[in-house]
Amino acid sequence: MNLRPVFYIVGLFLIFLGAAMALPAAVDLAADNPDWRTFAVSGVITVFMGGTLMLGFRSGAGSVARREAFVLTALSWVVLCAFAALPLRFAGLGLSYADAYFEAMSGLTTTGSTVMTGLDGAPPGILLWRGLLQGLGGVGIIVMAVAVLPFLRVGGMQLFQAESSDRSEKALPSPVQIARGIGLAYLILMLGTAAAYGLAGMNTLEAIVHAMSSISTGGFSTSDSSIGHFDSAAIEWIAIVAMLLGSLPFVLYVRALASAGGELFRDSQVQVFLAIVIAFTAVLAVWLNATEPIAPTDAIRISLFNVASIISTTGYANVDYVLWGPFFSAAIIVLTFIGGCTGSTAGAIKVFRLQIVWMTMRAQILHLVHPHAVYPMRFAGRPVSAEVAAAVTAFCFAYVLTAAALTLGLCFVGLDLVTAFSGAATALGNVGPGLGSIIGPAGNFASLPDAAKWMLSAGMLLGRLELFTVLLMVVPRFWRA
Amino acid sequence: MNLRPVFYIVGLFLIFLGAAMALPAAVDLAADNPDWRTFAVSGVITVFMGGTLMLGFRSGAGSVARREAFVLTALSWVVLCAFAALPLRFAGLGLSYADAYFEAMSGLTTTGSTVMTGLDGAPPGILLWRGLLQGLGGVGIIVMAVAVLPFLRVGGMQLFQAESSDRSEKALPSPVQIARGIGLAYLILMLGTAAAYGLAGMNTLEAIVHAMSSISTGGFSTSDSSIGHFDSAAIEWIAIVAMLLGSLPFVLYVRALASAGGELFRDSQVQVFLAIVIAFTAVLAVWLNATEPIAPTDAIRISLFNVASIISTTGYANVDYVLWGPFFSAAIIVLTFIGGCTGSTAGAIKVFRLQIVWMTMRAQILHLVHPHAVYPMRFAGRPVSAEVAAAVTAFCFAYVLTAAALTLGLCFVGLDLVTAFSGAATALGNVGPGLGSIIGPAGNFASLPDAAKWMLSAGMLLGRLELFTVLLMVVPRFWRA
Repeated sequence: MNLRPVFYIVGLFLIFLGAAMALPAAVDLAADNPDWRTFAVSGVITVFMGGTLMLGFRSGAGSVARREAFVLTALSWVVLCAFAALPLRFAGLGLSYADAYFEAMSGLTTTGSTVMTGLDGAPPGILLWRGLLQGLGGVGIIVMAVAVLPFLRVGGMQLFQAESSDRSEKALPSPVQIARGIGLAYLILMLGTAAAYGLAGMNTLEAIVHAMSSISTGGFSTSDSSIGHFDSAAIEWIAIVAMLLGSLPFVLYVRALASAGGELFRDSQVQVFLAIVIAFTAVLAVWLNATEPIAPTDAIRISLFNVASIISTTGYANVDYVLWGPFFSAAIIVLTFIGGCTGSTAGAIKVFRLQIVWMTMRAQILHLVHPHAVYPMRFAGRPVSAEVAAAVTAFCFAYVLTAAALTLGLCFVGLDLVTAFSGAATALGNVGPGLGSIIGPAGNFASLPDAAKWMLSAGMLLGRLELFTVLLMVVPRFWRA
Repeated sequence: MNLRPVFYIVGLFLIFLGAAMALPAAVDLAADNPDWRTFAVSGVITVFMGGTLMLGFRSGAGSVARREAFVLTALSWVVLCAFAALPLRFAGLGLSYADAYFEAMSGLTTTGSTVMTGLDGAPPGILLWRGLLQGLGGVGIIVMAVAVLPFLRVGGMQLFQAESSDRSEKALPSPVQIARGIGLAYLILMLGTAAAYGLAGMNTLEAIVHAMSSISTGGFSTSDSSIGHFDSAAIEWIAIVAMLLGSLPFVLYVRALASAGGELFRDSQVQVFLAIVIAFTAVLAVWLNATEPIAPTDAIRISLFNVASIISTTGYANVDYVLWGPFFSAAIIVLTFIGGCTGSTAGAIKVFRLQIVWMTMRAQILHLVHPHAVYPMRFAGRPVSAEVAAAVTAFCFAYVLTAAALTLGLCFVGLDLVTAFSGAATALGNVGPGLGSIIGPAGNFASLPDAAKWMLSAGMLLGRLELFTVLLMVVPRFWRA
């Protein structure tokens, strides 16, 4: 295996990351906050390491083969988090390196779980850095989901290869155009969201950080009470729209521009996603109105906000729903496993997989009645091969098994059952909050033991890289020949 | 669809069930307990109903086609439980019909969850009836697993069709011989266990009831404190052996007799099952010894007892492990999902399915490295078709989805998260106890709302019939044409 180009590209990524540290440094310098030195030094170290890697392995620059692409994908996230954690570790916030790494992983994977408290009084550089991690992570995730994973065929993602292999149809834009279009869509959505937040009453820093963590479905906030801090229905509605937009396939935005919008809602994944959002919102709103002293309009807004926050895997909180009893919590944990659409920044199992598993199970059941009949499956107008169906079903069960293993590990280091299970689910799904009083929407991850933080960091990485990209690395045969 | 033979056979089953009520009636009459009238009347009603069905549909007697076999399987359990519940409802125990149906379903599916308290002072007829339900249910389950489900191809069970289709090999016994052999093995194991329990200090009734609920991996006891009541290491060791014997494939006992025992331990499912038992016991014994003031030998016995009790889906308790913190409980819930070997009375997902899912996931991962390579899978020396692998994987994920849906439903009627999730898992797996203070090993299901009892009864049926046999009935296409 030739890992030279892998190290070369990781070096390139590090230079970008280090350069990005100039932004919080500048903001802290302007605010007369001594943290600017931490960002400057961390940035220099990161750029230096990146430059060293690029120089050292420049002879290896060139194309990356299949196996190397897996190593590159996994290694990039692990290394970038290690350096993104530096300013968090040394900024005088009292974070251990386990804390800082957890926070960086949570940022770049757009999970949004936090180990920090006192955000409301935190210096602007740190708040901006956390927002930037989510904004940059979001771009990385979409590029990976559109350009890398479909070709690596991870968990049935080959279904989404068409974008660049159907070259015969001249109407389709080229991969470069798609990448440019996606970047543009991401930027436009983020700027629009920031402007809307600003108009609704956030200051500039708050608006920028929340725009980055909304569109990237990350969930970091500038306040310990998350969106609830602003106590504003307008801001909640903006967040609802932004989180939902962030969890739709970004490729469709590009196509929608070319076809005047219709294509977006003709996509079956988007239809099912919105149907799930509406169904859960309706049930929870009725439930809230019936069991708590909450008016119908508030019940709808609160339910929709939390459904959108969890299914989009953002993880903003506007209320401590844990206090509303087990049914609300159980619905939240189900949403934690579902996630948004593929090709977006949303995590978890994702809607297209559930559609394919549903079709597979239906075919299995019909098969029992007529064992010799064939039940062809179609997704988005194209046939679903038995191979894809098997890959998707195996992915879904592997996802559940991984959650179970992580739960067992977290219980081993002393977490209670609800905290461990919801923590495993929220990390794997890149959602943010768990359940219970410790890591629920009103809590945070600070008090967990370091071992739990490392396990959860690994969980976020596993979830973000669609499990198999990481699990592959532990199979000895991967490294042979 | 011609349901006449279905009703005819259900009638036949009812006559057997009604006749079986003569046993507790006789025992209660001998003990001068007025309950004998309840059993006698219930028995007469049941036999009468069965006779009516047989007479009414005798013209339909004959062979049962494929779809009718599904209806017969599901309907038998539902109807038999409805009548088995009669004496429990009317014996003056203060049980509602929801309670009685839950208890009957728990008995016949060999789950072992109970809504009854005060077992220690209960009349002998009731205790014997609960034991009989498990003993009879166990036979029904093995017959179903060996003779019905493989031919209906439910959840990959076609893997076990060989027993009667490999007729070319003269060495194999015929299906009738196998059925006779299995019945004999079941009876011998039960009598041996009863004798052992008797020698270890149980009275005759206790020994018989516990023998029936051990070999059938049911878990009903004659005491509210289950096996813990006897406070005897000897009895616990007998239970350990009996529960493990009850969760091995009964067909292998027949073959083992013919081949002097070696075949039993050469079976890969048995090997993996025993490996799981040993691994969990070792980890939990070390954990117990390290975290609680428990001596190593006790730690091993207690761990093995509880591992065997849960993985065999028996559900006996000798201690309230919920008090030992979340790690022990998390391990128990994982075992609740695993279950024993197929072709036994054990429930849950079962070991062979986990073996096939493991192979499937491994093949998926290797496939990522070499997309065009083929990774053939073998189970018990025979190739596993892609169709079987898909059926098994779909079954496993459907199992998890069903547990999630049941959890959501139980939370809706007010159960807390841990009670709801562990209750759903223990019902689906036909295990017995859940977690927490309400339905944990030291609690029981009496205090749950009726709606929860009906849902859990449905869960036990779904789990026992391998999900798809029941889910099939709600697909409209099943009933057409």
